[in-house]
Amino acid sequence: MKYSFSDRVQNLKPSAIREIFKYSANPEYIALSAGNPAPDAFPVEAIAEISQKLLIESPISVLQYGTTEGYLPLRNFLISYLGERLLYKQKDSLLITSGAQQAMDLLTKSVLNKNDVVLCEAPSFIGSLNSFRSFQANLVGVEVESDGVNIDKLEAALQTHKNIKYFYTIPNFQNPSGVTMSLAKRKKVYELCRQYGVLILEDNPYGDLRFAGEEVPAIKTFDEDGIVVYVGSFSKVIAPGIRVGYVAAPEELVSKMVVCKQGEDVHTNMWGQIVCHEFMTKYDFSAHIKNLQQIYRRKAQILTDAMEKYLRPKQIKWNAIEGGLFAWCTLPEQIDMYEYIQKALAEKVCVVPGTAFLTDENQPCSSFRINFSTPTDEQLLLGIERLGSLL
Amino acid sequence: MKYSFSDRVQNLKPSAIREIFKYSANPEYIALSAGNPAPDAFPVEAIAEISQKLLIESPISVLQYGTTEGYLPLRNFLISYLGERLLYKQKDSLLITSGAQQAMDLLTKSVLNKNDVVLCEAPSFIGSLNSFRSFQANLVGVEVESDGVNIDKLEAALQTHKNIKYFYTIPNFQNPSGVTMSLAKRKKVYELCRQYGVLILEDNPYGDLRFAGEEVPAIKTFDEDGIVVYVGSFSKVIAPGIRVGYVAAPEELVSKMVVCKQGEDVHTNMWGQIVCHEFMTKYDFSAHIKNLQQIYRRKAQILTDAMEKYLRPKQIKWNAIEGGLFAWCTLPEQIDMYEYIQKALAEKVCVVPGTAFLTDENQPCSSFRINFSTPTDEQLLLGIERLGSLL
Repeated sequence: MKYSFSDRVQNLKPSAIREIFKYSANPEYIALSAGNPAPDAFPVEAIAEISQKLLIESPISVLQYGTTEGYLPLRNFLISYLGERLLYKQKDSLLITSGAQQAMDLLTKSVLNKNDVVLCEAPSFIGSLNSFRSFQANLVGVEVESDGVNIDKLEAALQTHKNIKYFYTIPNFQNPSGVTMSLAKRKKVYELCRQYGVLILEDNPYGDLRFAGEEVPAIKTFDEDGIVVYVGSFSKVIAPGIRVGYVAAPEELVSKMVVCKQGEDVHTNMWGQIVCHEFMTKYDFSAHIKNLQQIYRRKAQILTDAMEKYLRPKQIKWNAIEGGLFAWCTLPEQIDMYEYIQKALAEKVCVVPGTAFLTDENQPCSSFRINFSTPTDEQLLLGIERLGSLL
Repeated sequence: MKYSFSDRVQNLKPSAIREIFKYSANPEYIALSAGNPAPDAFPVEAIAEISQKLLIESPISVLQYGTTEGYLPLRNFLISYLGERLLYKQKDSLLITSGAQQAMDLLTKSVLNKNDVVLCEAPSFIGSLNSFRSFQANLVGVEVESDGVNIDKLEAALQTHKNIKYFYTIPNFQNPSGVTMSLAKRKKVYELCRQYGVLILEDNPYGDLRFAGEEVPAIKTFDEDGIVVYVGSFSKVIAPGIRVGYVAAPEELVSKMVVCKQGEDVHTNMWGQIVCHEFMTKYDFSAHIKNLQQIYRRKAQILTDAMEKYLRPKQIKWNAIEGGLFAWCTLPEQIDMYEYIQKALAEKVCVVPGTAFLTDENQPCSSFRINFSTPTDEQLLLGIERLGSLL
């Protein structure tokens, strides 16, 4: 039989990042291309303890169908946890999602028609971009600078394009650039989007992973107009394999997202939801976060030292790393990024080409992304040494 | 802010079934309206044992990111398990989904453009219908008889409509009608769809829950032309709260579904996948299935006896129950079904109006659905007695 596909998937292709992942699965390669949390960052013993108790004392709560909105004790807890941090507003509702990725999918499904515009940072997280693409969004990238999105260009984009549905931003330790948006820019972004009647999709998976510098308030904290859809994730602060995220947004939006979620996967898996709830309420969550920060601070230091030693002399530049999982490196102008990455692969080092994170992969780009959470210390050192030796 | 929504969600409304569920959550009501497996059907001890071992011996496999296609040992196991049963063909691939519902979503996302036709049984499972609706499918219902879909009407629909993307069927113990399609009709359905170049989406959540009569081969077993998308679920045979299902279909289709899943939820939760794999490979799965069949056979007998006693004298009819979780009751012609259901609610008994399962809720319908897996024996008896007393 000859299959015919929907217009929306005709042009979806497996991403460049997946090609790189094929190499990185090979243990002979040094994979600086992943985005996985460090395995020693998982609260393994607590989860084992919670799970065991749960399956003895209340197994049916784990095994029976749950509600689409999410496990009620976790929802209630998050509402107050976020409320205290000004991340949940009076007219908001909260939906537990199957990982934060699903929040991107559900918002897009709820508000975007084919060819409607999504403004996003350039570069931005490829998983979200592909999710938007699957709804035939017209993606418009706005340049990211070392203190966040270029405000003039954002304003120009808001003026130029019609049917803009939202501006997608990862304001903390952005994936892939590692950049954190300044407070001044956050306020300006909020004002501009309010003025143009455009929603803000604020994706904050890395906010808790700050190990240097000062915390900057989320855009959601300014939200008196009901324009910010705030997305959180347990993937980086508890574990990604459990697939639990959440979205706090105006109730009108969330109620549509709930209907969409019902048709997608009915509800988020119960075990993951209950584990998150128990861990956040019965364990010392803030001590756990401090521990994660220490783990990543140490890793980032090893990376930075190695980059200073091996990459700085070769005129490779990077943004200072204050949190998150990634470093964004930029090659000297005369170097062809693709050729460089191919050479790195030949030396069995995998990094991700910066173009993978652009709205148009054919735009020029001389940057690449390095992940420092997954590789061992030795791999990190050796990988950076080899990357330096290529120039 | 005034929110604008996508065309696809403008007309999605919370379903009638959700309204009923509000009552059924009240413990004063007898809920014959659910679709939950019986809590005593869950292999609680085995799951607790598996989980404990897992979190001690290989916690990282549960907690770290997995691949979109699914946990490889479970995929490989299912490929051979299904292959032995002729449910996996040479050109097929297998994708693990976040519950079977996601398979409906992903296939629709991959093949259906706005206004394309989905042929479905009338009545059919509301969750799937709503999933198709969320992609703006044009749903065309084809009448279900006591031995499955009406073949003449199916052929007429295939002749009449253009851009039919697939025929959606639950051939075993259909939700809501309880009907099982005969072998002759399955063969005819396959032949017709092959002839018209239309895919078959075969949804089989209840196939293992047969407690009377003879097993009928799945339509997928005839599939030499790569037209059948076969969907299985662990919700009824292990537990629904774990959210694990799967789809076996031609590789070309599955590869598009994988790209769509990546943008939706990255991958299915690992704990659920590994629990399913361990349970199917290290425990006596077929003995477990036999036990489930016994549990449901007993429940169905209690229901049937009660219906014979209280409903038969009032001219309420139903299809014989040979498996699954539901009975489909039809009122005498002169009775208004909605009025009857309102009266039942006043007597604190919840059943689901048959119209909830139609492609057009405004069509005439004098049937309602009863679930016998969730209520206790006492609730079942008392509920049916009250339903009888209303006429």
